[in-house]
Amino acid sequence: MRNSEVIIVMGSISDWDQMKGASDLLSELNIPHVRRVISAHRMPTEMLTFADTAKNEGYKVIIAGAGGAAHLPGMIAASTTLPVIGVPIKSSALSGMDSLLSIVQMPAGVPVATMAIGPAGAKNAALMAARILAVNDTQVNDALIAFQQKQHDLAVESSERLYD
Amino acid sequence: MRNSEVIIVMGSISDWDQMKGASDLLSELNIPHVRRVISAHRMPTEMLTFADTAKNEGYKVIIAGAGGAAHLPGMIAASTTLPVIGVPIKSSALSGMDSLLSIVQMPAGVPVATMAIGPAGAKNAALMAARILAVNDTQVNDALIAFQQKQHDLAVESSERLYD
Amino acid sequence: MRNSEVIIVMGSISDWDQMKGASDLLSELNIPHVRRVISAHRMPTEMLTFADTAKNEGYKVIIAGAGGAAHLPGMIAASTTLPVIGVPIKSSALSGMDSLLSIVQMPAGVPVATMAIGPAGAKNAALMAARILAVNDTQVNDALIAFQQKQHDLAVESSERLYD
Amino acid sequence: MRNSEVIIVMGSISDWDQMKGASDLLSELNIPHVRRVISAHRMPTEMLTFADTAKNEGYKVIIAGAGGAAHLPGMIAASTTLPVIGVPIKSSALSGMDSLLSIVQMPAGVPVATMAIGPAGAKNAALMAARILAVNDTQVNDALIAFQQKQHDLAVESSERLYD
Amino acid sequence: MRNSEVIIVMGSISDWDQMKGASDLLSELNIPHVRRVISAHRMPTEMLTFADTAKNEGYKVIIAGAGGAAHLPGMIAASTTLPVIGVPIKSSALSGMDSLLSIVQMPAGVPVATMAIGPAGAKNAALMAARILAVNDTQVNDALIAFQQKQHDLAVESSERLYD
Amino acid sequence: MRNSEVIIVMGSISDWDQMKGASDLLSELNIPHVRRVISAHRMPTEMLTFADTAKNEGYKVIIAGAGGAAHLPGMIAASTTLPVIGVPIKSSALSGMDSLLSIVQMPAGVPVATMAIGPAGAKNAALMAARILAVNDTQVNDALIAFQQKQHDLAVESSERLYD
Amino acid sequence: MRNSEVIIVMGSISDWDQMKGASDLLSELNIPHVRRVISAHRMPTEMLTFADTAKNEGYKVIIAGAGGAAHLPGMIAASTTLPVIGVPIKSSALSGMDSLLSIVQMPAGVPVATMAIGPAGAKNAALMAARILAVNDTQVNDALIAFQQKQHDLAVESSERLYD
Amino acid sequence: MRNSEVIIVMGSISDWDQMKGASDLLSELNIPHVRRVISAHRMPTEMLTFADTAKNEGYKVIIAGAGGAAHLPGMIAASTTLPVIGVPIKSSALSGMDSLLSIVQMPAGVPVATMAIGPAGAKNAALMAARILAVNDTQVNDALIAFQQKQHDLAVESSERLYD
Repeated sequence: MRNSEVIIVMGSISDWDQMKGASDLLSELNIPHVRRVISAHRMPTEMLTFADTAKNEGYKVIIAGAGGAAHLPGMIAASTTLPVIGVPIKSSALSGMDSLLSIVQMPAGVPVATMAIGPAGAKNAALMAARILAVNDTQVNDALIAFQQKQHDLAVESSERLYD
Repeated sequence: MRNSEVIIVMGSISDWDQMKGASDLLSELNIPHVRRVISAHRMPTEMLTFADTAKNEGYKVIIAGAGGAAHLPGMIAASTTLPVIGVPIKSSALSGMDSLLSIVQMPAGVPVATMAIGPAGAKNAALMAARILAVNDTQVNDALIAFQQKQHDLAVESSERLYD
Repeated sequence: MRNSEVIIVMGSISDWDQMKGASDLLSELNIPHVRRVISAHRMPTEMLTFADTAKNEGYKVIIAGAGGAAHLPGMIAASTTLPVIGVPIKSSALSGMDSLLSIVQMPAGVPVATMAIGPAGAKNAALMAARILAVNDTQVNDALIAFQQKQHDLAVESSERLYD
Repeated sequence: MRNSEVIIVMGSISDWDQMKGASDLLSELNIPHVRRVISAHRMPTEMLTFADTAKNEGYKVIIAGAGGAAHLPGMIAASTTLPVIGVPIKSSALSGMDSLLSIVQMPAGVPVATMAIGPAGAKNAALMAARILAVNDTQVNDALIAFQQKQHDLAVESSERLYD
Repeated sequence: MRNSEVIIVMGSISDWDQMKGASDLLSELNIPHVRRVISAHRMPTEMLTFADTAKNEGYKVIIAGAGGAAHLPGMIAASTTLPVIGVPIKSSALSGMDSLLSIVQMPAGVPVATMAIGPAGAKNAALMAARILAVNDTQVNDALIAFQQKQHDLAVESSERLYD
Repeated sequence: MRNSEVIIVMGSISDWDQMKGASDLLSELNIPHVRRVISAHRMPTEMLTFADTAKNEGYKVIIAGAGGAAHLPGMIAASTTLPVIGVPIKSSALSGMDSLLSIVQMPAGVPVATMAIGPAGAKNAALMAARILAVNDTQVNDALIAFQQKQHDLAVESSERLYD
Repeated sequence: MRNSEVIIVMGSISDWDQMKGASDLLSELNIPHVRRVISAHRMPTEMLTFADTAKNEGYKVIIAGAGGAAHLPGMIAASTTLPVIGVPIKSSALSGMDSLLSIVQMPAGVPVATMAIGPAGAKNAALMAARILAVNDTQVNDALIAFQQKQHDLAVESSERLYD
Repeated sequence: MRNSEVIIVMGSISDWDQMKGASDLLSELNIPHVRRVISAHRMPTEMLTFADTAKNEGYKVIIAGAGGAAHLPGMIAASTTLPVIGVPIKSSALSGMDSLLSIVQMPAGVPVATMAIGPAGAKNAALMAARILAVNDTQVNDALIAFQQKQHDLAVESSERLYD
């Protein structure tokens, strides 16, 4: 088995419900990965150490989910050259608009690849990680092509339910 | 002269135009202070060190201005027990609504005392710092009372310009 | 027992559900406090009297929660030099965005330390009050350090639930 | 000459540019009025006294303009039974959306008749005041009918400029 | 019994749930009133006729509730000199923000006295109508004073529930 | 020459700057049309009469531009079966978000074909009118095909400016 | 029986709940139509082919519903000269505001006739399609007149429920 | 010289002002790239062909900038397995909030790596492309490390301008 090339981190264990789809989809694409809680606000030192060492530990892509004043993806991105994918968690008061703006509106110099709010964004984070790996990994690329074909076929088939 | 009890930090030198009012108002209230650029995204290690040691260095209040995905106030607050006052810098695309939400929507556990967007917020950050110091400093409290009286008198006087 | 140094006020008894966390957390940190309904719109005279006399009565920090056109924190701040912490109550129609803007967008001259919308903001109001007291109270500071350590440890432990 | 039945107050002399249209339109309708700066945050005591006594002093309608965390109209309304018309001043960062929500989202029990943001709202405040007076004043009602007719005619005439 | 001086109209019978509070509060204040569905979009001719004749029929104030692209209050205001009070109905998709902007952002020339979104706004519409009548009706003014006193007392009493 | 099949109306002569592009584009497509100011709020009777008779007068499509609390497109649509195309005028305070929501959020029963905010929306209103006419008019359809081809070619050519 | 002149497409079978009203209303108006799932993101080739050939296949109007980053209506409009009516599906996180802006804010050159968010918009899409057909089809026009009359009568009757 | 691994596309030549920073930064990092206008709405066929063949032509990352109803990044992502980075162009009416939501709120299945609005986002798109390449290219990784170090040093030095 390959080493884990992707790590999913989230700011709170309560984000897991929305982030689980990222892990499931990576598994479906046969991409080994690990998942951790790393809180920017409650574990700042561990967060910085993680970001500083992630590339040396062999990770190739980091997926980071966070909600509200969501600082985790941007702070990790500040201390690594790995691509960081941010998932805005749907928040209780502002439905994730706060999470989205806190993740996507990064200043010039430190990019975060921001996904849609909530579970759809988590799934797409897995697919974006796969696309990044697929740049140099034909096996992952084949898995993506198969995934897209399956999505396509499901959409076509669903249309038949609307026939009279 | 007293040691500096307040430190004003900002994420970028380009924030200075909006933050200058905080420094001017602290000077007007005779509160010694220093000011620095500490970028959460370009100087993460220095930022963490600063936050960890600020209390031991004698600071009593931290004012932090940042714009866009504004992570500086929240990340500093995560590594200190000092009160941190956040100033959302008015941003170019979203007028500071992104800065505001990135600063104010902190998760339970790490508070940031958020001010209004832009120069008004910067001035109020100085006044909030003064109010915090004034809890145990009658000299600062007297300066605040005098400031409020002056504001009051100016408002009253300005009304006369509207008389027919 | 120490006198109450913090007072929690709210604009309506219906805000209590969201504000209760502030009271609970102050208790957890051993900070004596009282709580009251003071409505800016239904009790304006009492509100002004309260604000005018709060410092003389020995309070050091005021926490004020209000929703919708939330005028309570700003109006109290206008008549005292005590630090006022504002909590935007999550409202029924606009989810607290109205409360947030009504509290945070104070004009230069009168600061309100604004927290996040709803229960998270209420808890952080207690922590911000504690940080302000901790500037001159090592006992409260120690309680805050212990609280942060506990938060840290809970976050670290929660991560283990994500291990395969 | 009749006594002033309308009073225009504003939170800051800097609001005058946007509020001037209210005064001009009242004059055009021959409605005597006065105008004053009364700052909710810098003159809270005067504000409360004003609101408490306005009806006894013979005023019939109050127009109140304010910006940002705009507390003036709502606080005045809390201490009088006179109809209060609120004008949200266009603010620098959020274009008056903050002013609008701070004025219009009043809790049940204290109404403020909110107008549009900025100069259009100020003019409409004058017209709303006139409509209120016109309930029992046929002279004002006639002035309103004439005003509407003139507006109508100007609109009709302006259409001719579009003819080929 | 006095003739009805207030008429409550709404754009759809489905608005009644949110508008009912206006009728109840007028009854509590002993202000006779009628209520009707007048749809701007489904009954435009009746709407215009109603607006044109409302003053002659003896009405003194019109309360109009509408949701979404809420055109009813503004269109009525365009064809009468009576004061029109607009209530933005809380809508299903945008929570009434669409209703609010459609009602409040009237162009200079035609004012609508806009209330808060939803049931709170409906109640305040009744109180605003009462304030307008009270300009020349001491009986209504006395009812308003009594109402405000009762609101005050309820707020004061509710505070006791928070005592330890 | 054909009779005018399209009429462009706008709520105010000040909307002409943003609406002019609709007229120019109709001319470019050889579609005869007229243009008028019809204010929903200042000319309600004329507006209703216009809507009631537009189909009988031979118009096939109505383009209506309006800003702020933009009631014109929806009110016209309520009194005709002609397709009504709405153009949200970019407003001074809220950049046309108020105009957009006031036009697009029509209740079930009365549709308005809403375009983008401002000049782009005005141009697209002309193109949408042309598409509607083209359903039964091959000449207009040919003009549309030629227009699209020209747009395509201009886009392709513009790319060459980016070559090194 | 006439051939289908209207086709309803949607980006996902999960949109059917909100789009069903369009189909029902077309049936009520005796307008033959078909309905299909065509996903812009999962079936891009089929989408383009559909748009390119829709006019030749005899369709006269296309109704397209989509949610989130809703690209379907605009992409179809780019490859046909048929009128395209867009329905913003109410989304889970942002209540359809994302769908609305993704559909309505089309650049100059490619128009989409945008309806309200959700089921009301779907129903209005059917009515807009009918209005477009009615330009040259008196039978459909008669059906629309009858529909409007029925809507009118229902509104009038509903008012009676509010009588005392 | 290496072949171009990155291609920058934009929906309109008018986006170039905001996108230029992406090209400049790629050059600074010695990453060969090409740039093209490919309009989703004016060149849909070319767009689809481009997306279908981009991987075979040797591109490894696609940067796509678009404004308003910004469909380009998502539509390209639908027809390739390459990582697509989206840049929301700051738009004239809604400041790019429409562009942002149209790009970021992609449905599950098709990811777009969304950057900040405007020039900052364009620069970060270049850096994100570099991070993706750096996963398997130490030369690019070294360039990124040097870039981050330079950014860090500039931030540190800028702080000195704030010394008294």
